[in-house]
Amino acid sequence: MTNAVPSATPDKKLKLGMVLYPDFTLLDLAGPQAALGLHGETLLLWKSMDPVKTETGLFFYPTTTFDECPDDLDVLFVPGGYGTNAAMQDKEIVAFLVRSGKTARYITSVCSGSLLLGMANLLDGYKAATHWGCYGALAASGAIPVHERVVIDRNRVSGGGVTAGIDFGLQLLAELRDEKTAKTTQLILEYDPKPPFKAGTPDQAGPEITQAAMVLLGDMDAQMISTLNSRAALSPNAA
Amino acid sequence: MTNAVPSATPDKKLKLGMVLYPDFTLLDLAGPQAALGLHGETLLLWKSMDPVKTETGLFFYPTTTFDECPDDLDVLFVPGGYGTNAAMQDKEIVAFLVRSGKTARYITSVCSGSLLLGMANLLDGYKAATHWGCYGALAASGAIPVHERVVIDRNRVSGGGVTAGIDFGLQLLAELRDEKTAKTTQLILEYDPKPPFKAGTPDQAGPEITQAAMVLLGDMDAQMISTLNSRAALSPNAA
Repeated sequence: MTNAVPSATPDKKLKLGMVLYPDFTLLDLAGPQAALGLHGETLLLWKSMDPVKTETGLFFYPTTTFDECPDDLDVLFVPGGYGTNAAMQDKEIVAFLVRSGKTARYITSVCSGSLLLGMANLLDGYKAATHWGCYGALAASGAIPVHERVVIDRNRVSGGGVTAGIDFGLQLLAELRDEKTAKTTQLILEYDPKPPFKAGTPDQAGPEITQAAMVLLGDMDAQMISTLNSRAALSPNAA
Repeated sequence: MTNAVPSATPDKKLKLGMVLYPDFTLLDLAGPQAALGLHGETLLLWKSMDPVKTETGLFFYPTTTFDECPDDLDVLFVPGGYGTNAAMQDKEIVAFLVRSGKTARYITSVCSGSLLLGMANLLDGYKAATHWGCYGALAASGAIPVHERVVIDRNRVSGGGVTAGIDFGLQLLAELRDEKTAKTTQLILEYDPKPPFKAGTPDQAGPEITQAAMVLLGDMDAQMISTLNSRAALSPNAA
């Protein structure tokens, strides 16, 4: 299924639907929300109105239940996090993504959020990015993995790991609005990054640091591959 | 008042106290929290346990009241936001900062959060940074304004606007732990930024974009200068 991208409607407030789930990464959501949220309304979507825990134990209130989510979202967005694999096995979350993916203008993700989109068969045949540690699962999802910080393929827009959400948000804003709006927002966010180290990718960081990071990531990638391989049995799209 | 910085205790979980207030900027908090929160416990501090609204209308749960905040924080942190000026006029918030500032190991801020520290007389004679739009107020606060992305002066650590919180968090983590830990965290966060435009500072963005951004910022700086000038009457430190 491919959605056509309607022409931009710059005067209308953007309607952003951001999916919550237990143990998502706060910064995955906060980066895009900073760029896009200034220009519209942010809906934080969850099964109920109960608070949802981030992966470091903070609690966020949803604004809207899956059932009450409007079908005219400009952006459907899924963050990543240590909880992604569990969320991929949650039929209610996947069913919501399948449903909302039919009508949202842009279908988007950052970090391991791509795998949740993949679990809902929303990336089949689309180019996409994910966290550097999750590319095995991205290949297993039916997406065409691309090692870029932000990947736009028709109305699918995906970012790399965590902090890529800021680049993602500003680039998506330029698509939804225009370059001037995106530049003004970049200036408001004072986005002139100065990373203290050259360690943002495995190549830059070298084998010792990469090994230490992989210990922290655990076997997320393998677990998500296994979950994706069981998709036929779980997906609401299955015959 | 100057706190000595005790030697690092790398085996202990970091205790992070992050101050909430109405209309703070979510990304100001989420950037530092992503870098530091993986290595300790994050306390979200507020007057009560009632949820606190971000400047774009999302609600966050505090974890700990001001009254119950422990006095052995490794990091006392204040985010910025459109609500900073109102928070600077709130005696309960300022009194908490004065109290917690006496015992916290590091006293820190991002963006306009510096002005809240300044309101509590915590930056007197210290070099500090803030959002590019708030340097007038920073000068009025008693701090020594420095136009850098992250400024460390003894145990005061401050970052520039919004996204500077990621650079701030990683640099503070290197101080609190070591360079290897900071690099590993930078890799986990895939922090290899690729800003879509060259528009992160007024110089880069040019006069037209800067003018548009200043319209969005409004008269925050002038308001905060006025609030700081009324400090003697408000501050709990006043004779």
